[in-house]
Amino acid sequence: MRMYDVIDKKRNCGELTQEELAGFVKGYTAGEIPDYQASALLMAICINGMTDRETTWLTLEMAHSGKMVDLSSISGKKVDKHSTGGVGDKTTLICAPIAAACGVKVAKMSGRGLGHTGGTVDKLESIPGYCTAIGEEEFFRLVEKNGLALVGQSGDLAPADKKLYALRDVTATVKSIPLIASSIMSKKLAAGSDKILLDVKTGTGAFLERQEDAEALARLMCAIGEGAGRETVALLTSMNAPLGRTVGNSLEVMEAVEILQGKGPEDLRQISLELAANMICLAEKGTLVQCRRLALEALDTGAAFQKFVELVEGQGGCTEAVRRPEMLPQGQCTMDWTAPCNGWLAYLHTDQIGEASRLLGAGRQTKEDILDYGAGIRLLAASREMIKKGQPVARL
Amino acid sequence: MRMYDVIDKKRNCGELTQEELAGFVKGYTAGEIPDYQASALLMAICINGMTDRETTWLTLEMAHSGKMVDLSSISGKKVDKHSTGGVGDKTTLICAPIAAACGVKVAKMSGRGLGHTGGTVDKLESIPGYCTAIGEEEFFRLVEKNGLALVGQSGDLAPADKKLYALRDVTATVKSIPLIASSIMSKKLAAGSDKILLDVKTGTGAFLERQEDAEALARLMCAIGEGAGRETVALLTSMNAPLGRTVGNSLEVMEAVEILQGKGPEDLRQISLELAANMICLAEKGTLVQCRRLALEALDTGAAFQKFVELVEGQGGCTEAVRRPEMLPQGQCTMDWTAPCNGWLAYLHTDQIGEASRLLGAGRQTKEDILDYGAGIRLLAASREMIKKGQPVARL
Repeated sequence: MRMYDVIDKKRNCGELTQEELAGFVKGYTAGEIPDYQASALLMAICINGMTDRETTWLTLEMAHSGKMVDLSSISGKKVDKHSTGGVGDKTTLICAPIAAACGVKVAKMSGRGLGHTGGTVDKLESIPGYCTAIGEEEFFRLVEKNGLALVGQSGDLAPADKKLYALRDVTATVKSIPLIASSIMSKKLAAGSDKILLDVKTGTGAFLERQEDAEALARLMCAIGEGAGRETVALLTSMNAPLGRTVGNSLEVMEAVEILQGKGPEDLRQISLELAANMICLAEKGTLVQCRRLALEALDTGAAFQKFVELVEGQGGCTEAVRRPEMLPQGQCTMDWTAPCNGWLAYLHTDQIGEASRLLGAGRQTKEDILDYGAGIRLLAASREMIKKGQPVARL
Repeated sequence: MRMYDVIDKKRNCGELTQEELAGFVKGYTAGEIPDYQASALLMAICINGMTDRETTWLTLEMAHSGKMVDLSSISGKKVDKHSTGGVGDKTTLICAPIAAACGVKVAKMSGRGLGHTGGTVDKLESIPGYCTAIGEEEFFRLVEKNGLALVGQSGDLAPADKKLYALRDVTATVKSIPLIASSIMSKKLAAGSDKILLDVKTGTGAFLERQEDAEALARLMCAIGEGAGRETVALLTSMNAPLGRTVGNSLEVMEAVEILQGKGPEDLRQISLELAANMICLAEKGTLVQCRRLALEALDTGAAFQKFVELVEGQGGCTEAVRRPEMLPQGQCTMDWTAPCNGWLAYLHTDQIGEASRLLGAGRQTKEDILDYGAGIRLLAASREMIKKGQPVARL
């Protein structure tokens, strides 16, 4: 395989073979193919696309470029969950404990990522003592015992994806549906769960704004999952308004705890229940209708909250802080943004709320940025709500 | 200007501004923009194309990335000639002396290039003593005195093109019509002539096989020339058979001399006369019909051959070798390829003849290759000619 020929073929809209894609991924990961050839190929893929077969082959090669986690020693069905990310999306913190309470095994590895807030591991780290960097043996033991553990993604998971993503990030080749799909799915396949639930967000606060793009991504990721022998289900959910009322690391943990205690905003409760029901269903615990009832029971009986406490306890976190949220990191100073006149809140600029949260220190712009766990935004009014002049709308 | 935004715009089929293209060329030439961003942009251009405006801006920036030769101190109209290259193309060696004999000033700088044979400067260097590396002052003096000089292209001409071409060569982004046009025209504009004649080859032995591609390239290069205030004319000529009967450096000089002496193959004579007539016409010496007569006269009276002798003499070459071609380098050994049976020569695989010539040592595969000036192929039979078994068809 000559890299020149591979680039030339894709420039001419050809379909790459499994061998060509393998040669590219192996050669690039090993540093034998230079960045300038890889970026030319990525741009050609970005513009000319890839077939489902090509995308599946690329994904499998990327997954196999590093460690493939083997969860077979853990009993029961292991179900993973991934969200393409949105403003205020703390659903993992809620649906994973619900699913675990219903007997699903959730061995979740999360990245930190760049965004409005940190990733799931950053949110959990805002709980004093919570450790996301635990060894594999301990990780497996906790999943077997409690049904769930949430840890940071180890560095040797899909190293090809890490290297390719860094290159895509500086060559304007991020927004390619086959490349997004292969990036996400390579990590999910390497992480070893039997079944995968995908939450694909669409709308103004999502990475993919257009509904048809989100649908195409969801369809493609499911095809890759099936192609790799892992049952994969995707839900398309709206991200036109922030999920719940909080954006920020410790603020989101507090809100997740509220939901698990039977309180909190209805939109977040509903979507978390639906995600949990799908995870339970993937674990073959019944029909989707039965699983919805199981999820609701786990939430209402407090079993899910109990699982969350076990999760925190298992990984060294302070369970007191979970029961008494005032012990979690708080913003050093707060500021209320008040309405300038009477009226109603027409529309929340979801992406701008996310950006504001990031600027406050809740999210990263570069990998080196240090998070302020207490920073964030609490929305005090909802979209389409009547508000009076001087009424606080958001607390920074 | 952020390079990321420029790449992203072209990926989305946007039209780049003059400022954006200038930022790219300057930044890349200065080494501030990395190869991997440049190759991503080149691939996006390759697939999504560029408008004529963009291509003109890019070309002007590339031309201005180095020295702009100023020929204004030389009297008369300076006319440059460029061929996109073909197998056995030695027309410059013929049409330039004809044009000079008719009062056109030809200040030609040629590259060496990679191909079936060397470039025009390599062919001239096969004449013992001929020096293609002369200083600018001497170059100008010779053009003023003799009407023509043919030298090697100086290294500081369009350095952006040199750097970009090297990158295109390894990232499968060579075959883009706007990029080919800007590469050729940036050097022509920097070389300083008032008028430009382009010989765009098409057919099996040409870089661009398809007629419509050659037409598009010709049209685009003329638009760039006009946009830069230089009158530009393009001829589309066939390269389905080698030009003349020889392919190789000294072999081609011999054949050019034959034509200048009123002998040699008719196809080569005709195309050289037509190119010369167009150069004379660009120099405003009359209508094209009048200029055709002028060119024919210059050839038939021996004035053109006299100019060729002056050219060789001016640059230190052995004029004896021009009059007695047996003094030129010869192949150390020759081999005749004979017909295996009676029949007629249906078709010459022009590209394969070129490749064979290169393998014999007449052309370069990498820049470092050293040429064998005497190597090459002499065709002993022409396409569609009746041949007998055992009759020699080509001499290597």
